[in-house]
Amino acid sequence: MKFGGSSVADTDMIRRVAGRIAAAAEEGSRVVVTLSAMGSTTDHLVSLASEISGAPIPREMDMLLSTGERISCALAAMALGDLGHRARSFTGSQAGIRTDGNHTTARIESINPERLVQALDDGLVVLVAGFQGVSSDRDVTTLGRGGSDTTAVALAAALGAEVCEIYSDVTGVFTADPRVVPSARKLPRLSHEEMLEMAAMGSRVLALRAVEFARNHGVTLHVRSSARAEEGTWITEETPDMEQAIVSGIAHKSDEAKVTISGIADKPGVAAAIMTSLADALVNVDTIIQNVSADGLADLSFTVPLDQLPTAQAALEGLDGEFGYESLSSDDQIGKVTLVGAGMKSNPGVAATMFRTLAAEDINIQMIDTSNIRITVVINRREVERAVRVLHDAFDLAAEASRRADV
Amino acid sequence: MKFGGSSVADTDMIRRVAGRIAAAAEEGSRVVVTLSAMGSTTDHLVSLASEISGAPIPREMDMLLSTGERISCALAAMALGDLGHRARSFTGSQAGIRTDGNHTTARIESINPERLVQALDDGLVVLVAGFQGVSSDRDVTTLGRGGSDTTAVALAAALGAEVCEIYSDVTGVFTADPRVVPSARKLPRLSHEEMLEMAAMGSRVLALRAVEFARNHGVTLHVRSSARAEEGTWITEETPDMEQAIVSGIAHKSDEAKVTISGIADKPGVAAAIMTSLADALVNVDTIIQNVSADGLADLSFTVPLDQLPTAQAALEGLDGEFGYESLSSDDQIGKVTLVGAGMKSNPGVAATMFRTLAAEDINIQMIDTSNIRITVVINRREVERAVRVLHDAFDLAAEASRRADV
Repeated sequence: MKFGGSSVADTDMIRRVAGRIAAAAEEGSRVVVTLSAMGSTTDHLVSLASEISGAPIPREMDMLLSTGERISCALAAMALGDLGHRARSFTGSQAGIRTDGNHTTARIESINPERLVQALDDGLVVLVAGFQGVSSDRDVTTLGRGGSDTTAVALAAALGAEVCEIYSDVTGVFTADPRVVPSARKLPRLSHEEMLEMAAMGSRVLALRAVEFARNHGVTLHVRSSARAEEGTWITEETPDMEQAIVSGIAHKSDEAKVTISGIADKPGVAAAIMTSLADALVNVDTIIQNVSADGLADLSFTVPLDQLPTAQAALEGLDGEFGYESLSSDDQIGKVTLVGAGMKSNPGVAATMFRTLAAEDINIQMIDTSNIRITVVINRREVERAVRVLHDAFDLAAEASRRADV
Repeated sequence: MKFGGSSVADTDMIRRVAGRIAAAAEEGSRVVVTLSAMGSTTDHLVSLASEISGAPIPREMDMLLSTGERISCALAAMALGDLGHRARSFTGSQAGIRTDGNHTTARIESINPERLVQALDDGLVVLVAGFQGVSSDRDVTTLGRGGSDTTAVALAAALGAEVCEIYSDVTGVFTADPRVVPSARKLPRLSHEEMLEMAAMGSRVLALRAVEFARNHGVTLHVRSSARAEEGTWITEETPDMEQAIVSGIAHKSDEAKVTISGIADKPGVAAAIMTSLADALVNVDTIIQNVSADGLADLSFTVPLDQLPTAQAALEGLDGEFGYESLSSDDQIGKVTLVGAGMKSNPGVAATMFRTLAAEDINIQMIDTSNIRITVVINRREVERAVRVLHDAFDLAAEASRRADV
């Protein structure tokens, strides 16, 4: 069971979460819980660090930030004690979560859950501080954004858990963001691959890394509400007999920017040089397209998160001497809309329907990117939400899956 | 170097402390620093725990409270980094501080400072989270009140430090509390034994346990101001040629209560039964006196901290069936005044001067307790501060030690 920061925002909510954990234990489950830091704790710690230094030492950021989840776990253990349950909190290090030494963005290398198994065998409820581990230098590390989701999935894999339940303030994964599409429907089930595309393309329900980890280790996820008892969305391995929706859902991103390099020599190694310089500057390049024009010069466009645009521009300007290009331009007013569905593999007409729908709404497509279960279009940011709504209607996503089988 | 919570109350003060640490490192010292939690952090964590539970699990209290000192150390390491110094923070566990398993009141059993020595050899400034350690069960423990002082002294002993500097918002140890006696004078030097009596009898400058540890391991302490550069008070082993003040200082306590059990059988084992029942209830019994009256019955009186009076009364009422006593009474309006001085050993007239001075002021002495370097009187609480002032005058403590040699 993993509870995010908004589910443990104050001591009243921690007591409520403890009640939920206690109920699971009383049903006979061996329960391991991962908690995030309480509501605003991490923000508070980050602001302390920024008051001290413009460039805080990463090792010390980890020492600092890792305290938030420990506080949540200790308080939850106390609350469980008051409910008559024996519970014990563990730091990432105590839980045997070994990571690499990349402070603030560490990756889990292995888990030795010996102490957790011993505690479970002793009949205890186990609480593990999320988002953290210990390096081979015995230093505290943190896992970066979405780290507590990753902790939960990794523990579920290491312990052979039946299911990894991710509790938050949403009741599951929806066909689209319900704030944009009021008729959006909660999906009862998704494959890991579909969830991966949803997470990569804008759904904030689950951290991308956690979904990757779940897919790679075959961990079944159940995304559900911390406030309500209803079933959420199950995310499982795809099985041959699984009903495959043609379009399962629509994800969108509004905080993207596009960079275009025009008039570059169309020869081997140029794209590689560009991408290497961006990677060195730690820019997350997404959708990439390249066209060769009649005069033998190429245009290369790609998207980056909006907040990385200045870094990307600086990296590319630094490249100018290495090979010539005619111009560098950018557009900080773009967004992305993505259709995801495992059934697309065998239904080639989805792209045509999507493009036709957007054309009928006079929404101009700037870039297109596809995988076998996803189609992404880059459009003007102001048109993103409207595009999501018309596509949700066009693919009849508000209807139950059984009806959609006829589409 | 140890800095208390009021010296690291906010990020500005942490930066100031970092400047002080940097200056020590620049003078060529190998510097190890122990920090307390920032100002109100521990109080905040305690209040979170009390919001959760009326009786928080001690192991989880330690997991919770130990985070405060880690935050201070991580922030100080960042601040030192910005000053151009390489610094590294360590938790109690990482610093090799092994304790027993008594959560919230653990005692240090051993220190393996291997990682600290390695860091010092690498030219780093070392920061160690105070107040905490790790048990043989690999659980986080805390050392209770004054724990960070104890951490500092224990590290100084383990590392063979030249001096353990205790920085706080006072400039040293005074002949009396300057808030009570405006003419009180900062003492340049005290023996461990004298400081031990001062700390036990009410001086709040240093935690009693830390002074005990320093005495037992021969650690030289220097109590000084975190805001000013001036020398503070040195606390050292007593040497034969050390000038011994007859009276070094006056300590006082105002939060005490007295319990009297009247009319108990004057036979072996009764006092033991009483003290055992109080010890079992975790009552800290201090000054004890017993008188036998003509009819063969005894009266036993002792003092306890005021907040433990209800517990002490309950424990004694539970004893009633075991042996008879005529009455149980208590006085919650008492206080203590103590004269401390290594020179008392060879100057028997001190007690007479003390009692005469108090009598001249019409201050009634209810109990007397002495050691070879200390005289303590129990008096009415309302008269404590006046007693401190008249005794400070009577023993001419505001004057320099060189003049007092004539007394």
